[in-house]
Amino acid sequence: MEDREYMAQALELAKRGMGWTSPNPMVGAVIVREGRVIGQGWHEKCGQPHAERNALAACTERPGGATMYVTLEPCCHQGRQPPCTQAILESGIRRVVVGAGDPNPLVAGKGISLLRKAGVEVTEHVLEPECEALNRIFFHYIRTGRPYVAMKFAMTLDGKIAAPTGDSKWVTGEAARHHVHQLRHRYTGIMAGVGTVLADDPLLTCRLPGCRTPVRIICDTHLRTPLTAQVVTTARQAPTLLATCCSDADKRAPYEAAGCQVLAGPERDGHVDLNWLMDELGRREVDSILLEGGGTLNWAALEQGIVQKVLAYIAPKLSGGREAKTPVEGAGIALMSQAFALTHSSITRIGEDFLIESEVVPSVYGDR
Amino acid sequence: MEDREYMAQALELAKRGMGWTSPNPMVGAVIVREGRVIGQGWHEKCGQPHAERNALAACTERPGGATMYVTLEPCCHQGRQPPCTQAILESGIRRVVVGAGDPNPLVAGKGISLLRKAGVEVTEHVLEPECEALNRIFFHYIRTGRPYVAMKFAMTLDGKIAAPTGDSKWVTGEAARHHVHQLRHRYTGIMAGVGTVLADDPLLTCRLPGCRTPVRIICDTHLRTPLTAQVVTTARQAPTLLATCCSDADKRAPYEAAGCQVLAGPERDGHVDLNWLMDELGRREVDSILLEGGGTLNWAALEQGIVQKVLAYIAPKLSGGREAKTPVEGAGIALMSQAFALTHSSITRIGEDFLIESEVVPSVYGDR
Repeated sequence: MEDREYMAQALELAKRGMGWTSPNPMVGAVIVREGRVIGQGWHEKCGQPHAERNALAACTERPGGATMYVTLEPCCHQGRQPPCTQAILESGIRRVVVGAGDPNPLVAGKGISLLRKAGVEVTEHVLEPECEALNRIFFHYIRTGRPYVAMKFAMTLDGKIAAPTGDSKWVTGEAARHHVHQLRHRYTGIMAGVGTVLADDPLLTCRLPGCRTPVRIICDTHLRTPLTAQVVTTARQAPTLLATCCSDADKRAPYEAAGCQVLAGPERDGHVDLNWLMDELGRREVDSILLEGGGTLNWAALEQGIVQKVLAYIAPKLSGGREAKTPVEGAGIALMSQAFALTHSSITRIGEDFLIESEVVPSVYGDR
Repeated sequence: MEDREYMAQALELAKRGMGWTSPNPMVGAVIVREGRVIGQGWHEKCGQPHAERNALAACTERPGGATMYVTLEPCCHQGRQPPCTQAILESGIRRVVVGAGDPNPLVAGKGISLLRKAGVEVTEHVLEPECEALNRIFFHYIRTGRPYVAMKFAMTLDGKIAAPTGDSKWVTGEAARHHVHQLRHRYTGIMAGVGTVLADDPLLTCRLPGCRTPVRIICDTHLRTPLTAQVVTTARQAPTLLATCCSDADKRAPYEAAGCQVLAGPERDGHVDLNWLMDELGRREVDSILLEGGGTLNWAALEQGIVQKVLAYIAPKLSGGREAKTPVEGAGIALMSQAFALTHSSITRIGEDFLIESEVVPSVYGDR
């Protein structure tokens, strides 16, 4: 087997941590001697040992002289866990093959150069694009200190997320709705606007067995969320954070009494300033957000430049309606040539529906 | 080779007639003796010989005793051309393999039974679904006497066909726009509403070299199309038909003087009655229409039950805009469960854009 094949195996291992490692990256490691895999492991959960240590611990024979394949550059600093470079050196591993470099400024090449100085042979950039793509969220968070935001919506083939009456049950089929619950597991936070809370009273949790509970973030400029809303009444089971511009302590008290966290901040264009909010959430180790907003919040998020990805579920049906709700509303662009460009699009069929995934072209924010 | 393989070859031949055979079907034929193709042909153009005769004429040796593969049941009536069954019998063909049965009530099994009675061995239903799919338009037209209508639109990933200002240049990329011109070649008519004429002043022609010129049908209830509109000024180069409820001869005269045909008919819900119009167009041998309407016409077409297919070009970009135009507007449905269901969806990537093609589930019209 070649380096790329062992790295592919390490990548598959890394994915087993999906949804559990935040704010850490997903990492996988495979240890090989003379064509035999003698140990493998992955970072299973934040706070638990890193992939390298798990792989070493799982070795069926002594790893001295063996090669380690690891999807991300080994860390060399003391964080929640002791540095992995130290464990590698102690193990007698002779060669390390690395997928992606660690963008964390505390590591960023230092792990690799430390290993080399100690006489370990290091090969870099093996399946690098795949290893980076796996940790888009981590890379974004570590570079910006702010959450990676994925805008998700479900619409009919004529671009409606609800009938003119507001009815939206259901746009997509069961398979697509199940898929959304899997998605929620992968993001640390789920964000919606007060409009969605008022219209649909959603629970915004991941309802799959064994799922992590994401923090629910409601953008509610004037604190209009009803105290009877599900996101409030269930705040003791699953965390709810209300982001508001309302600084009136009396108005905030009942939400706090119900177990919600209320975060007051500046206003921008009549909305909670989303850039301020992203900084705040980043500081709270929210590395990723699934934005399940209505048209107003989605436009504000796009316009304020906080969106990295778009997930559009498209149902093969037509709703019509001049007054029907669409996924992104607000003022909109003036000319089609100014539209927010998306790139790296892919499409998947989910039951009868389609899912188009695209990344927001970062430069578009500079042009506006 | 097996029957299916020769039929597949006949299907490929049939497709060469695409855009030229209307209102006839596309048909291909292959003649085989002892494992050798000795002749092949297709229906090249309406008014010219059928596939069977072309294949016989192209034979490199006498076809007596050979097998003919033909995608559609051979005709047995005198139409624009003499019956093909007669040519087959005269040629001495011993066996005929048929793809799809001809739904034309003048044929409908009679061709096959005539051949059998004359001692020719007939095998039916070989690649039947593929042979039927190729001639969706013909099958619809022959069964209903009305054109097959395909609704086509181009929208952003958030469901907008134009910015709030009305600007729509361009939603999709060059490859997708080229694809639309290829589409236009396949339909006998192109239909748009007066709203689109007023907003964009489109030419609505097929601008590919060697293309057939489709008839341009403008739905213009109150005859508001400007006399300076391109569809009017070019009416002597490419036919233009204005469908209206306006019976005022003085108002119609200048359009007729410019070379347009004006068709006046009943009104329904403030629009030209589209069912009346489809009957009229069917009588004029318009077997297919590419509907390139705006949201108002598209909704009327859907609601009045004249649409068979939807072609949605989706561009990976976001436009936003509460007031931006969407592909289907009008009143819309009241509940999401009443949406017009689509089926047999497929997706194609065209340059950076996507094309979702779906068929309208016919029963939905009955439920409304």
